[in-house]
Parts: sequence; C-alpha cells; structure tokens
Amino acid sequence: MNGKNKISPAVIGRLSRYYRFLRMLNEQKVERVSSADLARMMDLTASQIRQDFNCFGDFGQQGYGYNVEYLFGELRKLLGAEEGYTAVILGAGNLGSAFAHAQTFSRRGVTVTAMFDVSPALIGKTVGDLKVYDEKDVESFYRAHPFDIAVLCVPKDAAQECADRLTHLGVEALWNYTGIEIAVPEHCIVENVHLGDSLLTLSYKLREQRLEEQKERT
Amino acid sequence: MNGKNKISPAVIGRLSRYYRFLRMLNEQKVERVSSADLARMMDLTASQIRQDFNCFGDFGQQGYGYNVEYLFGELRKLLGAEEGYTAVILGAGNLGSAFAHAQTFSRRGVTVTAMFDVSPALIGKTVGDLKVYDEKDVESFYRAHPFDIAVLCVPKDAAQECADRLTHLGVEALWNYTGIEIAVPEHCIVENVHLGDSLLTLSYKLREQRLEEQKERT
Repeated sequence: MNGKNKISPAVIGRLSRYYRFLRMLNEQKVERVSSADLARMMDLTASQIRQDFNCFGDFGQQGYGYNVEYLFGELRKLLGAEEGYTAVILGAGNLGSAFAHAQTFSRRGVTVTAMFDVSPALIGKTVGDLKVYDEKDVESFYRAHPFDIAVLCVPKDAAQECADRLTHLGVEALWNYTGIEIAVPEHCIVENVHLGDSLLTLSYKLREQRLEEQKERT
Repeated sequence: MNGKNKISPAVIGRLSRYYRFLRMLNEQKVERVSSADLARMMDLTASQIRQDFNCFGDFGQQGYGYNVEYLFGELRKLLGAEEGYTAVILGAGNLGSAFAHAQTFSRRGVTVTAMFDVSPALIGKTVGDLKVYDEKDVESFYRAHPFDIAVLCVPKDAAQECADRLTHLGVEALWNYTGIEIAVPEHCIVENVHLGDSLLTLSYKLREQRLEEQKERT
C-alpha cells in the first residue's frame, strides 16, 4: 500500500464507509470477516468489495476472509487517521456546536483544538470541551498552534472571505459546511458538504415510489 | 421526462448539484447557460453535463445553451421539490436546531412542521419557527398532521427504535443523521448521512498531498 496508483473519488468515498463498518466489527472483537458477510452488511456485492480492496493492496486470503483488526489498521493509515491531524471549527452556532459535542473527529484521529466566532455572546464561552475564541484572532492562534484542517460553519456571506484568510495563512484543508462552493488556491484541499443535496435525493426517490404505487393502483 | 428509465444514484446525486447552480443562476436572472459555461462553474466536462441531462430528457438546443428558468423548473419537478412535501425533525439538539434555522428545506420545497425531543428542558420551547413537542406524541401528531419525511437527529442508541416507530406509523422517508445505518422495511426510503465520511476523504487527500510534497523535496 504505497499509494502507487491514484484511487478514484468513488472508491475513496466507499473506503470511508468500510472504515465505519470495520471499526464497528473491531470494537465488537470480531476477528475475521468474509467479503460475502461484509457485502451483506453493507449492501454491496462481494466482488465489489474485493475489487475496492485490490485497488490499494491485497488484504484477503482466499477462503479465510479478512483480518478485521489488520484491515482496519491499514485503512486508518491509508485514510490519514493515524497522522494526528488537528482542526479548528469556525462558527460556534448550532452546527459548529453539534460538531463540538460529537465524536465525528476523534473517531477519525482528528483532534479539534479550538472554535472561533464573531459573536461577543459566544466568545470566551466553552462548547463541549472547546473554548470559543474571537474570529479576529485566528491568525495569531494559527501561528502559535498551527492546525491542519479548518471546518467552516460560518454564514454563507462570510464563507469566501473566511476561506481566503485561512488559505493565506497556509491552511491546507477546508471542510466546508457553508453551502457555498468556495474558490481556493491549487494547493488547498476542500471538501464541500451540501446537506441539502441528499434531501433532494430523498424527495426524488419518494416521488418515484409514489408514482410507482399510483401506476400499480390504476 | 416520464421517469421512463431508471436514473443511476450517481446521476441523481449530480442532479441535486445542478439544482443548486441553476437556482443560483435563476436568482441572478441569467436566461441561458451553455453546457460549457455550466461545466466551468461546476468543474465538470460539458459532455458529462449533456450526458446527464440526456438521461431524463432533452433540454438544450444546439448552439443556444439551456434555458435556465425552464431547466430549473424541470429539475424541481423531477426531484420532487414541487410535491409540497412536509417533514418533522426528531431531536432538538444542536444539529436539529441548525436545521430549524437553515433554509435547507424551504429551498427544496419541503416544509418543516414540527420538532420533537425527549428532554423536558426542550419540550414546549420554540426553535426558529418550530415548536418542540414531546417525542412521545409523535404518533398522535402524525395522525393529525401526517408528514412525508422524518429527519433523525436523535442519539445513536435511540436511532433504530425511533425509525421503527416511524415506519410502523407509515412514514415513507427517513433522512438519517444518527450515524447508524438503520434497518427499515422495504417500502421505506432512507438517506443515511455520515458527515464523518467526508472528513476522512479530506484527511486522505491531505496525507496524499503531503506525501507528494515530501517526494518532490527529496
């Protein structure tokens, strides 16, 4: 697993999902899992799973299945969860606060070190275990405690300016929840999360299902 | 556009993204957009865009580009945003409250009618414009005001039981933020949202980029 071949975005997306299932199996002290069992749990095909794992190495042994702890460990390494990355959250509103309380980061090896906000009502408060700093101080904070990832939970109209300040500082990775697809320099990595996209997928499927039912009834 | 052919999940995902860009162009009173311009904005190829739109009808006119208002209207219909769906939010914690304040639903034609929680500290309160009801009353609420979609923002250990109650009632669509992949009867549609998956994609890309940089330096 030397990252010799570029892995497609679709496979990377699935690897994160394998990570969740393998973490769960590992917590349950399951030792081995076959591609057939994993396929059933994950609603995939066994051949899909074998193909995905072949993209980045050979973890299975024909007829013996995968060693859960080993495979989970390899996925951790590959996905950067052993790098000890640090993150800060910009925006201490409801969404930012939801992250402060969740295990989203710690379960993926990322330590959140601070939150930032512009609101005097929030600055100085503690959310979860995190102190909320004045957003004006993000530059001086970064110089004292450089972080790898910035999570953008600020309002839409502050999104681009906030991203500009961070990338100017040298922050390399932005996890963007602002609902705006921000522009960044080439060296910066952005994951845009649009929660509403999957609501539309849901409403598309619901409409299709009801159209089907109507057709069956007539 | 009669839904004659099944559209693949990947295309449906992209349609939600087209929806966002076309809504924006439409709000900006842009009348026509070429597949080349749309491709540039969305970081796709023009041929990809033409292919996607061909999946469900022919909206473009060679050399004239797409009529933004018309295309947006057709996407609205196709994606169910004109069905007038209603939703309730279960769990009035930070994440549920973030939704109560956001335009995630209204922008996609979905009206949120209520929130539910188990906490006496939250029941009876108002979050955004939404009243928080006792989660015990979800059945009687549904009978008086049936809703199409339930948004699960409850803790992990309450997720499956909550889903069971809702599907038993006849709720057909669950938007699941609990972090657990819940099991539902066949007639029920679930969109599982795992926020952490995209954090791992980010950390994967960050690690890859730093490995590249290291290689270049040596």
